Amino acid sequence: MAFVRPRRVRFSDCDPAGIVFFPQYLVMVNGQVEDWLHESLGYGFGGLLLTKRIGLPTVHLTVDFKGISHLDDELSLSLAAERLGRRSFTLRHRILGADGGLRAELQQVLVTTSMDTHQAIDLPEDLRAAVERTLENA
Amino acid sequence: MAFVRPRRVRFSDCDPAGIVFFPQYLVMVNGQVEDWLHESLGYGFGGLLLTKRIGLPTVHLTVDFKGISHLDDELSLSLAAERLGRRSFTLRHRILGADGGLRAELQQVLVTTSMDTHQAIDLPEDLRAAVERTLENA
Amino acid sequence: MAFVRPRRVRFSDCDPAGIVFFPQYLVMVNGQVEDWLHESLGYGFGGLLLTKRIGLPTVHLTVDFKGISHLDDELSLSLAAERLGRRSFTLRHRILGADGGLRAELQQVLVTTSMDTHQAIDLPEDLRAAVERTLENA
Amino acid sequence: MAFVRPRRVRFSDCDPAGIVFFPQYLVMVNGQVEDWLHESLGYGFGGLLLTKRIGLPTVHLTVDFKGISHLDDELSLSLAAERLGRRSFTLRHRILGADGGLRAELQQVLVTTSMDTHQAIDLPEDLRAAVERTLENA
Repeated sequence: MAFVRPRRVRFSDCDPAGIVFFPQYLVMVNGQVEDWLHESLGYGFGGLLLTKRIGLPTVHLTVDFKGISHLDDELSLSLAAERLGRRSFTLRHRILGADGGLRAELQQVLVTTSMDTHQAIDLPEDLRAAVERTLENA
Repeated sequence: MAFVRPRRVRFSDCDPAGIVFFPQYLVMVNGQVEDWLHESLGYGFGGLLLTKRIGLPTVHLTVDFKGISHLDDELSLSLAAERLGRRSFTLRHRILGADGGLRAELQQVLVTTSMDTHQAIDLPEDLRAAVERTLENA
Repeated sequence: MAFVRPRRVRFSDCDPAGIVFFPQYLVMVNGQVEDWLHESLGYGFGGLLLTKRIGLPTVHLTVDFKGISHLDDELSLSLAAERLGRRSFTLRHRILGADGGLRAELQQVLVTTSMDTHQAIDLPEDLRAAVERTLENA
Repeated sequence: MAFVRPRRVRFSDCDPAGIVFFPQYLVMVNGQVEDWLHESLGYGFGGLLLTKRIGLPTVHLTVDFKGISHLDDELSLSLAAERLGRRSFTLRHRILGADGGLRAELQQVLVTTSMDTHQAIDLPEDLRAAVERTLENA
């Protein structure tokens, strides 16, 4: 099941054209992953990186910008997994306007790594379960 | 009465020392003003700047950083007015940790301007009333 | 010929893991496009958007993160065009470390639009010539 | 002697009003301190924080915003020390437009701390010498 959260377009997200500056969509999406971790695991990037010493770098991103988002727009961010591997997984993010129109669609490949060796490691069990629960068509 | 909202420290707020990068406190505070406008006026910076053509630049800031905020900390942001003038007002922001400890205190002077002439103008009536409602000791 | 510029990894680019926060690569790349416009056209986004009223939104991005960039790393950003259409073009960005190792590779599709109608319009002549000069294999 | 560097206003610095978003002035100023460290010490925040394990938090900021800076403005950033203590120092930053007009003036108090104990420690000798060289009226 997709993890869906509302997100208003903030002043600090916008560029001189009055619309979302495209790198800010990535900041939004990173915050969405963060909220999903908090809700699924009971801890966020702090617990993962600093306590468990597990990194979660993004190794691939594809982004299609489909529509313009303006200051104060009430967006909806939707996160779902489309692939679960042993040491990596792929998330699909959809950013929708209040009218349901697609503003941006992102595919993000994340890998679990050891913060000490920077090598890929197996997903920890709780993260694997969290990804499984949000698998599309699951 | 102070306008108080929770704010978790996000990954994107933090620096290589794992603590809030100090300019991000200003981004948080700008978001707090934005949320207060939405709740007090029923519209935010978009309505103010783009529809009403009223600017709200910050002309003075004093910030005292009192404590360190780490990734995932559950902060509390408190906004109150300490002065209400004809064309400007002063906000006092307090950023507190979950233990109630003061992390940062900010004094922010804002001026209402015409987006066309960039000259100071009187506060519009609804904004004046909103500032009045959050005046300290009021 | 590629447009190549040095770029040191700044404190404000880095995350709590001490490495470049991935959305910051997009901010870097946007700055690289900005510098290329300034050098190629004699004006930047201000001249394009605000004076000529021509928007240059990114409609597609593909990013491969190949290596980690740390605080203070001396990166090299390389921009080249790989496609020139009538109303859009595709840039290829390569971000290299001081050792020549590839840190990130990006493909960015940009469209020229009217800031008034938001519809795609033909590339202005000077921008078309600038893209042509940086076409790979040209 | 003041440390002066040019800084063009970037697209990513600007807000929907087409002017510098005020927290971005702080990011600029942090970059200015970073460049001054690199030039004065031969290393930057990475060397200071990660290698020497010395933190340099800002404990107080006063900012006066005097004029508006637009996209593509060619600013000049000037850094000078106005006080040198045993465990802290005060920098004065001036941000000027191309016409010499003052856009913003900042006073920043920085403290040297141990990254391990987070307690204030004496300035290391090379940093003390660097601050001395940029003392106003020195």
